[in-house]
Amino acid sequence: MRTPRWQSLFPVLDWGRRYDRGKFAGDMTAAVIVTIMLIPQSLAYALLAGLPAEVGLYASILPLVFYAIFGTSRALAVGPVAVVSLMTASALAPLGLESMAEYVAAAGLLALLSGAVLLAMGALRLGVVANFLSHPVIAGFITASGILIAVSQLKHILGIEAHGHALPQILASLWHNIGQVNGPTVIVGLLALAFLFWVRKGLAGVLHARLGLSKDLAGTIARIGPIFAVIGTTLAAWALNLAEQGVSVVGEVPMGLPPFGLPVLDLGLVQALIGPAVLISVIGYVESVSVAQTLAAKRRQRIEPNQELIALGASNVSSALSGGYPVTGGFARSVVNFDAGARTPAAGAFTAVGLLVAAMFLTPLLYFLPNATLAATIIVAVLSLVDLGILKRAWGYSKADFAAVASTIALTLGVGVEIGVATGVLVSLLLFVWKTARPHVAEVGQVPGSQHFRNIQRHEVVTDPAVLTLRIDESLYFANARRMEDLVTARALDCPELKHVVLMFSAVNEVDLSALESLEAINRRLDDLGVRLHLSEVKGPVMDRLKRTHFLEELTGEVFLSQYEAFATLRGSDAGREAAAE
Amino acid sequence: MRTPRWQSLFPVLDWGRRYDRGKFAGDMTAAVIVTIMLIPQSLAYALLAGLPAEVGLYASILPLVFYAIFGTSRALAVGPVAVVSLMTASALAPLGLESMAEYVAAAGLLALLSGAVLLAMGALRLGVVANFLSHPVIAGFITASGILIAVSQLKHILGIEAHGHALPQILASLWHNIGQVNGPTVIVGLLALAFLFWVRKGLAGVLHARLGLSKDLAGTIARIGPIFAVIGTTLAAWALNLAEQGVSVVGEVPMGLPPFGLPVLDLGLVQALIGPAVLISVIGYVESVSVAQTLAAKRRQRIEPNQELIALGASNVSSALSGGYPVTGGFARSVVNFDAGARTPAAGAFTAVGLLVAAMFLTPLLYFLPNATLAATIIVAVLSLVDLGILKRAWGYSKADFAAVASTIALTLGVGVEIGVATGVLVSLLLFVWKTARPHVAEVGQVPGSQHFRNIQRHEVVTDPAVLTLRIDESLYFANARRMEDLVTARALDCPELKHVVLMFSAVNEVDLSALESLEAINRRLDDLGVRLHLSEVKGPVMDRLKRTHFLEELTGEVFLSQYEAFATLRGSDAGREAAAE
Repeated sequence: MRTPRWQSLFPVLDWGRRYDRGKFAGDMTAAVIVTIMLIPQSLAYALLAGLPAEVGLYASILPLVFYAIFGTSRALAVGPVAVVSLMTASALAPLGLESMAEYVAAAGLLALLSGAVLLAMGALRLGVVANFLSHPVIAGFITASGILIAVSQLKHILGIEAHGHALPQILASLWHNIGQVNGPTVIVGLLALAFLFWVRKGLAGVLHARLGLSKDLAGTIARIGPIFAVIGTTLAAWALNLAEQGVSVVGEVPMGLPPFGLPVLDLGLVQALIGPAVLISVIGYVESVSVAQTLAAKRRQRIEPNQELIALGASNVSSALSGGYPVTGGFARSVVNFDAGARTPAAGAFTAVGLLVAAMFLTPLLYFLPNATLAATIIVAVLSLVDLGILKRAWGYSKADFAAVASTIALTLGVGVEIGVATGVLVSLLLFVWKTARPHVAEVGQVPGSQHFRNIQRHEVVTDPAVLTLRIDESLYFANARRMEDLVTARALDCPELKHVVLMFSAVNEVDLSALESLEAINRRLDDLGVRLHLSEVKGPVMDRLKRTHFLEELTGEVFLSQYEAFATLRGSDAGREAAAE
Repeated sequence: MRTPRWQSLFPVLDWGRRYDRGKFAGDMTAAVIVTIMLIPQSLAYALLAGLPAEVGLYASILPLVFYAIFGTSRALAVGPVAVVSLMTASALAPLGLESMAEYVAAAGLLALLSGAVLLAMGALRLGVVANFLSHPVIAGFITASGILIAVSQLKHILGIEAHGHALPQILASLWHNIGQVNGPTVIVGLLALAFLFWVRKGLAGVLHARLGLSKDLAGTIARIGPIFAVIGTTLAAWALNLAEQGVSVVGEVPMGLPPFGLPVLDLGLVQALIGPAVLISVIGYVESVSVAQTLAAKRRQRIEPNQELIALGASNVSSALSGGYPVTGGFARSVVNFDAGARTPAAGAFTAVGLLVAAMFLTPLLYFLPNATLAATIIVAVLSLVDLGILKRAWGYSKADFAAVASTIALTLGVGVEIGVATGVLVSLLLFVWKTARPHVAEVGQVPGSQHFRNIQRHEVVTDPAVLTLRIDESLYFANARRMEDLVTARALDCPELKHVVLMFSAVNEVDLSALESLEAINRRLDDLGVRLHLSEVKGPVMDRLKRTHFLEELTGEVFLSQYEAFATLRGSDAGREAAAE
């Protein structure tokens, strides 16, 4: 039962039709919890992006609704996330915009461009592009971003100014202003930090063990912990009039509907932002899809990666049209949504209503909320992203993977997020290509008592001085063709009794035109030495292509279906009989 | 018997020690013939590079001597060649130099930089870098360069002005000036062209068939044909005073030793030329090494690619120090040298003496040589490089190879040599990576009566509904890991009776960290479905790496040495007995 193409564009048509009261109850509960969790988070991430707090709320409303319509994950919650907020700040800083209004408009344009990029990739079914971000690059990038974000928030905890988008600048800037630290701010910040760390690490255990709450419920309450910090410090700031003591607070936040409208399409700005928009799209997409896949796997559901591009694209466009900034699927909120019992994407839509209510009526309550509290929320959230262990794991596994992680982390911290991730991708690709250019070649022999052939250096095997069998452990293509040519000729020159060379093609998945010429050269050179060239275990697609050339006619030897057949035939009649008797 | 490292830097020490009278005779004969051939050729290529004619002679003297000392090919002749001359012109044109003296100095600097690049690559043993120029890219580049060169020389045949370094500009420029065509020049040019074509195509046959000369001798005489065109048209121009009728002639050429000295090291110029120098080095190296290897193979000699970098580097530096411009090993001259009986690199040194004599005493004779004759020499020489058939061959063989050729040709002709070759390399690499990102995966079964397993869609094979064996035809790495993860899970979901999935790793040459995580995910997901995951035919290097992780402990199934062992074990006891009885 295949759904028609246009219907698969709207997964809502599928699950919406079978919606019932049971699902509604689950979705509603999840929505209430996620709403409470998202209010401080959205404000905090807006702050991280350098935007006014309410922009975080706006970016959390329509995107949830659009993802509910187009998305294929049942539990993903879309909105502002830490890494994308950092990338937004880093994209907008070099523009040197003068007023906050311009800055907000540019953030909206960035969301629009990012949405357009995602939609275009979706239309071209380019989800596969995300695979070029290797796991070490993503892990390194997320870790470095987490460190950068945490350090960048220290200024709010200390109550001082600091600038820059790379670690050295931020640290220098903090050090330079360290004299102006504001005591009361530090107290609020440290208390909030301590409370949030305790909520994260200890609260769930206490609720579960002492109060007898179920593990799930205890975990969920711990997740919404930040709201208590927000309420507590806001009340304290109001009661103790902390703003007058130099504690920076959120201040007046406009109340009402998000400001709908198209961002201004300034061509110069579009040119400056299109590069960052592509990077934000790809990183956001990768982060979102991996969260969605992790959650889908738990309930044996499937994610359609290309449809996810469409859904995230639509979410970003809707964010741009409603005063928001770039968004993507977030890990923490999606997990809470999932754990709290969300059954369909409708939970997202209900959350959107909750946040809309907050934006319309609750913003005056945020006036006394200290920025230090929001910064503490961010720091606690992002430190869980930092995983420097990836460096050790990568080192232990392979030096190439280590090089990719290390260069990504070093350049993200030292230069910036865009250079960092771009270098990581480039390094991984170059190392892969470099490795395929210098392939492993094993001389193989027959494992006694079997028809299997393995490396003579690793296994006890049967060989014959007149037959040299080389297993080439790589596709043959231009970057390694000439090397193989030299290697095979050199090996043949070293074996005086040699009559046959067999190239075992079990690992050769491709022979391109350059490699074909090298094979022809090998064939001719061996012929000059009185040695015949044979191939074995040539795969279907490779054989199809060789058949279109004259190579098989010129080949001095044969093409054998299996290496065993080749060896049995070429060993000479005596040895051949022996082998057959085994 | 290994030669010590420092001695291998001077191959002359090896062959020089065993030099004798027989070798001297062969070398001397070859040197005389090559000298006669090189005089018009060097003048012509200097013209092509936009340089005064004598620079071509200078660039043909010291480089030959230095190659004789450092080179590993017995027959390679180093000097100005068509493609490198074109690239020199294209590198120097954008500098907008005002006087010819500055232009000559810049050409010398280019040779110096190119020599430095080659020496550095040789010291770092980076000969392998040249392998990244695939055969289609080289073939496309040489073909397009041949067309560009031939068209750029038309102005000399027509006696008009024309500028530009890409086909559209040159053609537009020719068209614009077509009104000023000079009749006598066209007559000289066409006669020279006709004569040279006849020499190339018909003369050898006539000499061989009518005059009974040996094929080799006839071929060699045909190769030095251009000298007759030079003598004939020079005499005609002198006798008929063609210069007064508007026929452009070479004019006064300084007589004497080449001007020794270091090129001026202007830092701005170095910056502008280093990019082109790298490209010229790599292209020149590839061209030279392939000529050397072709000739060496005919006499069962070996070329040491990294030593060739040193030799060509030294040649270019010596060219820079003696008033020359970038040089490399040329195809035509090396073949003539080889056919005429050169036995050692000393032939090159003797040729250098011949050209030195020419530079010192014969240059006044070149006064009346028409430029149209030199242009005709170039056109006839380069048209043999043009091989548009490569487009058809590449198309027939693989679309990826075709894309590389076509883009190289189109961009070299349409934009310029540097963009053309760079794009070609990039396109080939991207297509290779793209292909490995979407690997072929075959479901395999046992070929009856053997222990060999092949694709069920191509062969009649034995399978078992409880065992799904997938042969993954590519190394597993970040770009394809997630795709494999989805594919294996999807296939497993489609087979209700499935108990075992075997991934046959015979073509998996590498499992990187991203792929390891995908394997772990596959293992977990299959476990959830009650299916066990097994691996078979895992290669040594891959197994070594997997052993360093926890994957093998978590694996629900086993790792089998051979696919046959896996299938025999997993088919279940009954089927297993049956298989063992075979």
